[in-house]
Amino acid sequence: MSIENAIERLEAMLGPRLSTAAAIREHHGRNETYYPVTPPDAVAFPETTEEVAAIVRLCAEERCPIVPWGVGTSLEGHALAFEGGLSLDMSRMDRILEVHEADMDAVVQPGVTRKRLNEELRATGLFFPVDPGADATLGGMAATRASGTNAVRYGTMRENVLALEAVLADGRVIRAGTRARKSSSGYDLKNLIVGSEGTLAVITELTVRLHGQPEAVSAATCAFETVGGAVNACIETIQSGIPVARIEFLDAASIAAFNDYAGFDLPVRPHLFLEFHGSEAGVAEQAARFGEIADEHGAQGFRWTSDAQERNRLWSARHNAYFAFKAQRPGARALTTDVCVPISRLAEAIEAAAADIAQSRLSGSILGHVGDGNFHVAYLLDPDSPEDLEEARRLTHRMNLNALALGGTVTGEHGVGRGKIPYMAAEHGEAWQVMAQIKRTLDPLNILNPGKVVQIN
Amino acid sequence: MSIENAIERLEAMLGPRLSTAAAIREHHGRNETYYPVTPPDAVAFPETTEEVAAIVRLCAEERCPIVPWGVGTSLEGHALAFEGGLSLDMSRMDRILEVHEADMDAVVQPGVTRKRLNEELRATGLFFPVDPGADATLGGMAATRASGTNAVRYGTMRENVLALEAVLADGRVIRAGTRARKSSSGYDLKNLIVGSEGTLAVITELTVRLHGQPEAVSAATCAFETVGGAVNACIETIQSGIPVARIEFLDAASIAAFNDYAGFDLPVRPHLFLEFHGSEAGVAEQAARFGEIADEHGAQGFRWTSDAQERNRLWSARHNAYFAFKAQRPGARALTTDVCVPISRLAEAIEAAAADIAQSRLSGSILGHVGDGNFHVAYLLDPDSPEDLEEARRLTHRMNLNALALGGTVTGEHGVGRGKIPYMAAEHGEAWQVMAQIKRTLDPLNILNPGKVVQIN
Repeated sequence: MSIENAIERLEAMLGPRLSTAAAIREHHGRNETYYPVTPPDAVAFPETTEEVAAIVRLCAEERCPIVPWGVGTSLEGHALAFEGGLSLDMSRMDRILEVHEADMDAVVQPGVTRKRLNEELRATGLFFPVDPGADATLGGMAATRASGTNAVRYGTMRENVLALEAVLADGRVIRAGTRARKSSSGYDLKNLIVGSEGTLAVITELTVRLHGQPEAVSAATCAFETVGGAVNACIETIQSGIPVARIEFLDAASIAAFNDYAGFDLPVRPHLFLEFHGSEAGVAEQAARFGEIADEHGAQGFRWTSDAQERNRLWSARHNAYFAFKAQRPGARALTTDVCVPISRLAEAIEAAAADIAQSRLSGSILGHVGDGNFHVAYLLDPDSPEDLEEARRLTHRMNLNALALGGTVTGEHGVGRGKIPYMAAEHGEAWQVMAQIKRTLDPLNILNPGKVVQIN
Repeated sequence: MSIENAIERLEAMLGPRLSTAAAIREHHGRNETYYPVTPPDAVAFPETTEEVAAIVRLCAEERCPIVPWGVGTSLEGHALAFEGGLSLDMSRMDRILEVHEADMDAVVQPGVTRKRLNEELRATGLFFPVDPGADATLGGMAATRASGTNAVRYGTMRENVLALEAVLADGRVIRAGTRARKSSSGYDLKNLIVGSEGTLAVITELTVRLHGQPEAVSAATCAFETVGGAVNACIETIQSGIPVARIEFLDAASIAAFNDYAGFDLPVRPHLFLEFHGSEAGVAEQAARFGEIADEHGAQGFRWTSDAQERNRLWSARHNAYFAFKAQRPGARALTTDVCVPISRLAEAIEAAAADIAQSRLSGSILGHVGDGNFHVAYLLDPDSPEDLEEARRLTHRMNLNALALGGTVTGEHGVGRGKIPYMAAEHGEAWQVMAQIKRTLDPLNILNPGKVVQIN
C-alpha cells in the first residue's frame, strides 16, 4: 500500500497515459504565483468517467493522493500535490457532448476550456458568460467556484453550473442537479461539489447554463481623481440598478503597467472599465446613466466605444493586467490575493489596502470586480528575497483580516487552496469543522486533494 | 429517555411557551393538502437562538423528534410530526434585525413572513422578490428552497438567501454564507441547508438579498386556443430573452374556477398571465414583444394594464387559484403536486398531464410558473373516497415519472417532505445515498424532522 505501488498499477492500467517523466511532472507542479514548483509523483490522463472511477478506487486502495488538474491557472496552490501522489490531468476529457439551444444549456466534459466552448457556441446566438480571465477549464472553474469580470451580471459558477457528474473518493459515480431550471428535490449536492476544489469529488461532466448573446455590447473607460471616487461611482451604479455586464476597478499602478504592456495611453489614475450588454438603445442608455453618476464622483474623461475590435483590445489588456504588472519588474514573481466585502464597505477596504501598499517596501497594484465588492491585490516579489515574501504575506494577512472585519470573505473567487487555509477558522468558526465532517464522511481516507480547503487530523 | 421526558423537561425550561393543549397541537398537525391532521406531542415557541440550541440538545438527549414549523403552508407534509415529538414553532422569532439599504440585503429572524418584510421595506425602494403565493415565513421558505411566480426573473431562495445562522442536531450554532455578494471560501454549507427541510439544521437567522423596486410594473393576460399555443408562446418568450418578471400558465379549468371565485370574466381557455418590471418604456417594449410572440401562437386577446389596483386584483386572484379551484367542489380536498422540466419539454409534459386528467374520474387543474419549466396539477378529491385518493396518486405518479423521463425533477419548488420520497431514488440514484450519508453525519440520532427528504435505517 503505497504511492509507488499505485503508480506501478496505474501504469499497467493506463499505459502511456500514465507519466512519470520529469518534464510532465514539473509542468503539473508549476503555478502562477509564489509557490515553488511542486511536482506530483506521476500524472494520469484519463479519457472516460469509468477510467476516473477506476483510478480513484485504485488510489484509495493504495492511499495515493489524487489532485485533479485543469490547466493550472489556480492562484492559491489548489492543484499542487503538496503531499505527493497523482496529478489527474483532465485535458483528454474535453468533448462538448450536447448543446441544447432551446434550453440554453450545454453538457461538457471537464477539460473543455471556456474559450473553446464559446467558439463552438458562436453560431448559436448563445454564450457561456463566466470569465475569470485565464482560459481555464470548465471543470477547474467549477471546482473553484470561479467567477470573474462579468459575474456582476451573469453570476458565478454556482449559478451557471446546472448539474454535474462526479466520481467520489470510493469510486462511486453520482449525478447532482438537473437540466430543469429549478428544483427543490433534496440536498443541493451540486453546490456542495462546486467550490470544493477537488476535495470531495472529481468532476467528470458538467451541464452549464448558456445566455443569449447580447444584441449590442459597448465598452467604456473612465478615469477618476481618487480611488474613493471610482469606487463610490461603482457603488452608486450598482445601487441604481444599472445592469452593467462588467465594472472593473484598476488603480493607477495597474494603469501604468497596462499602458506600458499594451501600448495604451490612459491617464495614470484610478479607472473604471465597464461593459454594457443590451439592445442598441439599452446600452446607450446604460452608458449615459453611468456617465452622470461618474461625473458626480470626479470623473475625468469618459470614453465609450461600441467598436468590437477596440473593445476586445481593451478587455484583452484588462485580462492581461496581471502579466502587465509582472512585466514591470523583470524576473519578479507576483503574490496575488483576493477578498470580497459588502459593497458599502468597498471603498474603505480598497483604501486600507492602498495605504498598506504605500507604506510598504513592495510595489503592489489593486484591481477588481468591484460591482460584486470583489478586488485583488498583486505584490511584486524578488523570488530570492525572503524579506519580500514576508512583507507580501504580512500585507495579505492584513487585507484578509480587514475583509473579515468588514463583514466580507477572504476569497471572492480565487478559492482556498492552501493559501487561505489559515483564515478559514476565523471566517467560518464552527462551520469549518462541519466542512471537515463532510470531508471525512465522503473521503474518509483523505485521498482527494488532501490539505486543501479543510484540515483533517 | 423518551418523548414524555423531553416534554416534561421542556415545560420546566419554557413554561407556558411549551404547549400540549389539544387545539395548539392540532393546529400544528394541519396541512393544506391530503394528509390527515397529524398533531405533534407538544409545541415549543422559542424566542432566541440560544433557546433553540438548548431545546435541540435536550431533545437529542431524549431522542425526541423535532419538526420546525413556520406557518404550515408546505404541500408535501414537510412540517408534520409523523413520528411524534416536538413541533418547533418559530413564530416568536419574527424580528427584522437589520436592513442594509446600501448593500441591498436584510437580516431577519426565521419567523418573519415575506409580506411583513415587504411592508417594512416599502419606504426603502427595495423589495424581497421570492413569492410562493402563500404568506410563508422566510425560514420555512429557505428550508424548502421555495420560489414561485417571479423566480424566472429574481431566482429562488437559493439565490436570495445570502447567509444564515442555524442550530445543528447537536446544538452547535453555525453561520454559513456571507453578506459579500460572492465567495469561494469553502464548501457551500448555506446551500446545503437551504432546501434541507429542517432535516440537517434549524434555521435561526437569515440574510436575504433585496432588489430595487421596479420603476414601472405592468401586467398582461392573454388567452390561447390550445395548451400548446400558450406553452410555446412562453418558451419563445424566454428564449427571446424578454426579462419577464412573471409568466404563469393557467389551464381552462383554472380560469373557470378563477372567474367564479374572483368575479372575473376571462374566456374559459388556456391563459398566460404576465408581469413586466422595468422603466416605463421598458415594460411597454417587453409587452409589445410578448404580444408579437403570442400572436404567432394563436393568442385570442391580449389585455394589458399598468394600473396597480387592477394588477393586484389579478395577481391576488392568481395566488388564490388553489382555493378557487377547491371552492369548485365544496367539501373537497385537493391533492397538488409540482414538477419541473427543461423548457423544451414543457409542452409535452403539460399535454401529457392534461390528457391524464381528461381520462380520469377526477377533475384537475394545471397551472404553473412556466418560464422556469415548472408547473402544478391539483386534483379535487372527496376526502372520504379511497378511490379518489388512489386515482389522484396514480395520476401524480405518472406525472412524476414523466418529468424524470423528460430530464426534469419531481419537484420544482414544493420540496420532498414525505410525499416525494418515493421518487428520490429514481431521480438521484446513488446521490440520494450521499444525501443520507450527510444526514447521518450531521444528525446521527435522526432527531431533526425524521422521515423527510432522506431515508435513514
